[in-house]
Amino acid sequence: MSTYHPLSEQEAITIAQSIDGFFPDGASLTCREIGDGNLNLVFHITDSLSGKSLIMKQALPYAKVVGESWPLTLDRARIESEKLIIEGQLAPGLVPVVYKYDPELALTVMEDLSDHVIMRQGLMNGIQYPLFAEHISTFMARTLFFTSDLGMNQQEKKLQVKSFINPELCKITEDLIFDDPYTLSSNNNISPAIADAADALTRDDALHLEVAILRDKFLTNAQALLHGDLHTGSIFATPESTKVIDPEFAFYGPMGFDIGAVFANLILNYAGQEHWSRDAEARSEFREYLLTTIADTWKLFEEKFRALWNENGVDRLASAAKGYQDYYMKRLLQDTFGYTGCKIVRRIVGLAHVADIDRIPDDADRERSQRLALEIGTSLIKMNRSAESIDQLINTVRGAAQN
Amino acid sequence: MSTYHPLSEQEAITIAQSIDGFFPDGASLTCREIGDGNLNLVFHITDSLSGKSLIMKQALPYAKVVGESWPLTLDRARIESEKLIIEGQLAPGLVPVVYKYDPELALTVMEDLSDHVIMRQGLMNGIQYPLFAEHISTFMARTLFFTSDLGMNQQEKKLQVKSFINPELCKITEDLIFDDPYTLSSNNNISPAIADAADALTRDDALHLEVAILRDKFLTNAQALLHGDLHTGSIFATPESTKVIDPEFAFYGPMGFDIGAVFANLILNYAGQEHWSRDAEARSEFREYLLTTIADTWKLFEEKFRALWNENGVDRLASAAKGYQDYYMKRLLQDTFGYTGCKIVRRIVGLAHVADIDRIPDDADRERSQRLALEIGTSLIKMNRSAESIDQLINTVRGAAQN
Repeated sequence: MSTYHPLSEQEAITIAQSIDGFFPDGASLTCREIGDGNLNLVFHITDSLSGKSLIMKQALPYAKVVGESWPLTLDRARIESEKLIIEGQLAPGLVPVVYKYDPELALTVMEDLSDHVIMRQGLMNGIQYPLFAEHISTFMARTLFFTSDLGMNQQEKKLQVKSFINPELCKITEDLIFDDPYTLSSNNNISPAIADAADALTRDDALHLEVAILRDKFLTNAQALLHGDLHTGSIFATPESTKVIDPEFAFYGPMGFDIGAVFANLILNYAGQEHWSRDAEARSEFREYLLTTIADTWKLFEEKFRALWNENGVDRLASAAKGYQDYYMKRLLQDTFGYTGCKIVRRIVGLAHVADIDRIPDDADRERSQRLALEIGTSLIKMNRSAESIDQLINTVRGAAQN
Repeated sequence: MSTYHPLSEQEAITIAQSIDGFFPDGASLTCREIGDGNLNLVFHITDSLSGKSLIMKQALPYAKVVGESWPLTLDRARIESEKLIIEGQLAPGLVPVVYKYDPELALTVMEDLSDHVIMRQGLMNGIQYPLFAEHISTFMARTLFFTSDLGMNQQEKKLQVKSFINPELCKITEDLIFDDPYTLSSNNNISPAIADAADALTRDDALHLEVAILRDKFLTNAQALLHGDLHTGSIFATPESTKVIDPEFAFYGPMGFDIGAVFANLILNYAGQEHWSRDAEARSEFREYLLTTIADTWKLFEEKFRALWNENGVDRLASAAKGYQDYYMKRLLQDTFGYTGCKIVRRIVGLAHVADIDRIPDDADRERSQRLALEIGTSLIKMNRSAESIDQLINTVRGAAQN
């Protein structure tokens, strides 16, 4: 069974039984494939006697997107599994536990989180996550700091950079986020209602300059080991718990790209509240909750990141040079503005959209949400290099919503 | 013979004979080991009949510096050989031709350049190299552009980054250039005469901030495949020919680090002309030659790099975004200022000095040269982020020399 092939449900059960000590003797296992079949098989295996369960995720050697299929490296399963293990060490409790990784089968066996819901869906249902800012700021501060030259041995870091070279999945980001939305591309997915706004993106010189700079940093700046796809669809949540999943896009890149992914998806939900809130009062309240979450996340992230640096910094000069930490944190904030903007724009006009916007049934509501998101996204991109504080981001969102 | 061991001269001859078609039948080969024995064995093999000759360079598994010995990876021979081959493809005629690489023996067989002299020595002897700016600007423009995300397939570039991860040799640079000179370190090598100036380096907050920023870029910015040690001791020259050698420090880093290495070593020679010139008039003339060479090198580099970008750019957005090329070239100039400064400072107070300064016999001349170099180096570091044109660098050097 060790040569790669897509597993059957029965084979998945056999592998699950082989994991020492997980299921009790005499377990009665059932298996259900619950993936969407586009990139991976996902098996949910349960013991009906003890109630214990686990998840097995197997990478498929192709990606299906909008009907097309293209080959995709199975090495992403190794990257995902190794990144999950590193995250589990650095931010225990905030990612699923990995029980086993089989490189031949491109298979990761991990903790079942079906008592959680995908955060994007939760936000669309109006659920608030009061601990999310605390959790995600810990996750980001610790995974980013301890994989950077500030927090880990700088020679080991270079070997880790090597191990997480991820050309195929980075290419997806480079095309879909940092190129297609700003040009005529058959990859784009543009609602006819906002054709004028999408067209404006292709003719905005000031915007192109900033995106080119942000694209260059994505291509060249090996600052920390990123999750690489940290949107609200990659987060399982309950009001008490946060679990970050699916790090197959992991690679060494600019920290602001991960932080920006979180903020962008909270802002996309904010824009979508044109529809999802019951009424104006509920909309206003939920939007304030989202903005408070963004502000709290940044403030907690910055506080924790600086504390880690002060207590665990390994770079003598970076710690000794007066003013350097302030300089570093400001550049990080500025990158965050830029990548937040890029991640918003691509979800409105690029290939892959988000349910927060696309599932809005009313055409006018949806168009208003799309235009609001684009206005916020392009503003954040244009202001990124002069940003000074997270309040400017909050005010930009609020200001755009009031227009 | 294929298991690694340091070769004898007789073994080197046997290997030389095995290179198909290089030496004619009946060649009468003699071999002489001409390395300094610190890092590598270097065999010079000559056929006394045909006059043909070649060089064999074998890495030793340790480095000897100031009497100490520490282990050093043999992988640097692979890196050197692969980098030489890439340079030979991108900048033909400006590096020695590689005839053979044997990974087991950590051995590179290459073109004999003994009709050239090490440029540092040539400059100390007052030799001018009228084609150097033309040659080195071509070398840098082509090797840097075509290994960057601007000029090569961006997914292949990532695999090349992986192949040139070079932790041990980067560590040497990180310590000796970007840390030791700015703190009390037993690695430093400080003339008692300039103890006050060396001490000032350890207490200069503005300087530390800039060096920390430049250090961070060295650690994280995988902009292009650098030579990594491009000083005038790594260049063989005649008035008609320039050959860059010894790329064992190659890795993906910021382009300005290579350009800065060239400029720093021309400036170190400039500072050393306190002694090397016969008289004030000769000094003034040679110094003008050096400054003209720096200015010409930058101008030609910029012209060639922009032309390559315009004709061979592979990044759609980087080419389309108005103003981005100007922005990019300015950042490159600014990095060049910073790295030029860092490379000067380390050669005055750090572990490894340069003959241009250290071989000055007169104490007063040597001290004056050292202080001049330190003043130029620290000034360039402090002005790096606001630099606008190469003329500012030239004026900084000239101004310091006039004080």
